[in-house]
Amino acid sequence: MALKRLRRPARRSPRGVILQLHPPEILLLGFVTLSLIGTLLLKLPISTTHGVGWLDALFTATSAVTVTGLGVINTGADLSFWGQLIVLVLIQVGGLGFMTFAALTVIMLGGRLPMSQQSLVRESLNQSSVGEIGRLVRTVALYAMIVEIAGTLLLAMHWVPESGWRIGLWESFFHAVSAFNNAGFSTHADSLMSEVGNPLVNVTISALFIIGGLGFAVLADLHEKRTWSRLSTQSRLILIATLLLNMVAFACITTLEWHNSGTLGQLDSTSDRLLAGWFQAVTPRTAGFNTVDTGAMTLPSSLITMMLMFIGGGPSSTASGIKITTFIVLVLTARAFFQQREEPVIMNRRLSIDTVNKAVAVALAAVFMIFAVIMLLSITEPQAQLLDIMFETVSAFGTTGLSRGLTGELSMPGKFIIIATMLIGRVGPLSLGYMMAGKQTPATRFAKAPLQIG
Amino acid sequence: MALKRLRRPARRSPRGVILQLHPPEILLLGFVTLSLIGTLLLKLPISTTHGVGWLDALFTATSAVTVTGLGVINTGADLSFWGQLIVLVLIQVGGLGFMTFAALTVIMLGGRLPMSQQSLVRESLNQSSVGEIGRLVRTVALYAMIVEIAGTLLLAMHWVPESGWRIGLWESFFHAVSAFNNAGFSTHADSLMSEVGNPLVNVTISALFIIGGLGFAVLADLHEKRTWSRLSTQSRLILIATLLLNMVAFACITTLEWHNSGTLGQLDSTSDRLLAGWFQAVTPRTAGFNTVDTGAMTLPSSLITMMLMFIGGGPSSTASGIKITTFIVLVLTARAFFQQREEPVIMNRRLSIDTVNKAVAVALAAVFMIFAVIMLLSITEPQAQLLDIMFETVSAFGTTGLSRGLTGELSMPGKFIIIATMLIGRVGPLSLGYMMAGKQTPATRFAKAPLQIG
Ligand SMILES: [K+]
Ligand SMILES: [K+]
Repeated sequence: MALKRLRRPARRSPRGVILQLHPPEILLLGFVTLSLIGTLLLKLPISTTHGVGWLDALFTATSAVTVTGLGVINTGADLSFWGQLIVLVLIQVGGLGFMTFAALTVIMLGGRLPMSQQSLVRESLNQSSVGEIGRLVRTVALYAMIVEIAGTLLLAMHWVPESGWRIGLWESFFHAVSAFNNAGFSTHADSLMSEVGNPLVNVTISALFIIGGLGFAVLADLHEKRTWSRLSTQSRLILIATLLLNMVAFACITTLEWHNSGTLGQLDSTSDRLLAGWFQAVTPRTAGFNTVDTGAMTLPSSLITMMLMFIGGGPSSTASGIKITTFIVLVLTARAFFQQREEPVIMNRRLSIDTVNKAVAVALAAVFMIFAVIMLLSITEPQAQLLDIMFETVSAFGTTGLSRGLTGELSMPGKFIIIATMLIGRVGPLSLGYMMAGKQTPATRFAKAPLQIG
Repeated sequence: MALKRLRRPARRSPRGVILQLHPPEILLLGFVTLSLIGTLLLKLPISTTHGVGWLDALFTATSAVTVTGLGVINTGADLSFWGQLIVLVLIQVGGLGFMTFAALTVIMLGGRLPMSQQSLVRESLNQSSVGEIGRLVRTVALYAMIVEIAGTLLLAMHWVPESGWRIGLWESFFHAVSAFNNAGFSTHADSLMSEVGNPLVNVTISALFIIGGLGFAVLADLHEKRTWSRLSTQSRLILIATLLLNMVAFACITTLEWHNSGTLGQLDSTSDRLLAGWFQAVTPRTAGFNTVDTGAMTLPSSLITMMLMFIGGGPSSTASGIKITTFIVLVLTARAFFQQREEPVIMNRRLSIDTVNKAVAVALAAVFMIFAVIMLLSITEPQAQLLDIMFETVSAFGTTGLSRGLTGELSMPGKFIIIATMLIGRVGPLSLGYMMAGKQTPATRFAKAPLQIG
């Protein structure tokens, strides 16, 4: 699709081919480029303990750049320190958004953002005011640094005594960056299952990825306004919805898994079960770590997990999915429909028709895309169960990284399909729509066709 | 919900409580009443060969009235001739719509339809012009009679020689009525699997349910206009979409099942495989008969089947689902979105925003409802696979009646859930929305809340 766009009549810009692309195209191009560079670096002998195939390297690099966390190799055992560092850099670059990085570079070089690139950053961060971009970018970098260092120090209190300074600090840093960027990569083969009962690790990691999943717009708003009443409607909505979703998910999953001997049921103490239930409830919206066996969860829990992966986090966050704001708008629209109100209303504010249409378009595009991917995987993976295929697809689309075990058994075409799904999931269904769209001048006005619906 | 509406302030109508209800409420009330009457009749000793439980009687009656065809009992073996006749009457009354029947009664009694009941019929048939109702109702009854008798005669050519006059004619009549009304009930325990290679039965039955699934509006239009160019845009769209969907489904399912030893692969001749592929491709959109084992189909075929069950047939037809027109509007809307057009255009006609919104509301309501039912069944049926639960849910919602075998194993709460799903599927998601809606006067105008989507 990027190629098709290149063949369009040039827009007479002196800045070359790259600036003739639409922002989402550059975003996608950037992610693909980063994935390819990552692939090459992971193929270096120094990066792995005993080599890794091209496709697995591409899968790993794409999974890191899109902060998904699905893995066909064992990050801890198959990758050397250098390989792990490459993954971590890809996570950091992908997570904070290479657009943010590009803008940051321009600012640090002393230049001001040219208008064309401001809109680029705006698209990437989904911010409505171009003027706020510069400040936002600096806030982004600052927050990421502070939060990741704080996380490293907290985690080090557990892992340094356990594994010594060198390995313990590296493990702590790796998990802090991976958690804040919602990447879900772990140097441990079993993710965090061995830490299932550890409050320090559980609370620190979940706090890191919940903060990262709020979105920088909310964080910047919190940083600036400090009091609840002065926060923007959007920030307050995201905070409330995050709290509600986490609480409801916690109640449901803890209840449904309490006696499941494959998950919570195997834990002895009530506090361990609550801690594990909490972790499994908050991780799906995009973090992707797990402290119990995801594949052993009950069907209703798996359905709830898929729903949460589909929803994702805040806009302009390290999370993907349809985004929590889209979910809120859908719920409000449904409520307005049943109340026969013209426009959805929340907190004494009404939502415009445009907002509603955009939310519906995103949700429908996401559903169509997920259905198409499930369909393809059902053909390429004839031995797999629907639940496993569906779970894997939604996980890749929401760049969550939880898996019921299908990742390791994927066929070659299946791996390519999941790679594409992670990229599409990260760039976002709406961006894809934008990218696929040819600008079309309003055509002849046609007469209306009355159609019966439903 | 009907009770809640009853408690509202009366609308000062002298005609009693029933006319204070909204049309969809009356529709639902009618289906529920018919189901309950059917239940009582099926509990009569004369109706069954060795008795049937209350819940199974309710399930069977509801399945018949909503023309679904899911069965917890064996229609051929467990029901006597009288029991089968009760089922057939429920199918005919439910299929043609008891609203049509009510209007027909009024007309035949020599009275004219009062305005309030015209809008009732209009709601039921989804017609836009109230004036056409009287003619439509007569056309409906006439067509049903002609098509069902023709179908009976054709089928009798096969079944009379096989089973003698009495049983052969009854079987032919039963299957003709069941097919035209898209009910999918069969007096044979294995549906039509024993007729898999019989062209006469396959072609007659599939022709009957395809005609029934077009919708009476299309049939009346065809009857009146006779030439293609004079047909309404809607009629032409439905005919083209029906042809396209059937052809695409035929190509996909035949290809995917060709070597599946559980389905087409067990048939020796190419013509038998093509015939069976055709039947399995056209039955999902709501008929519900099967000539091969539905449970043995591959996962991709099952997904396509679910998609077709979700889409359903034409509006004001014996089919349910979101309706073929809703599906067309969704596809056109997606195309318009990607082309950055303001309004979807088809056949030199544009679709209004209202039409688009209604289609999106129907689709989203259907998806929400199906997800909720799957969630509930995953709790009440802990031993069941996701695929089986999903298939059963979509089948009940689309009143299709195909099953991978879960129906027979449903728990008691599971049966109640499927009963409710069949009723909701038949009355339609939009009607449900209408029903749940309280009339609300436009409230205070609030300031707009800008929200970021996607
Ligand atoms: K992730
Ligand atoms: K049916």
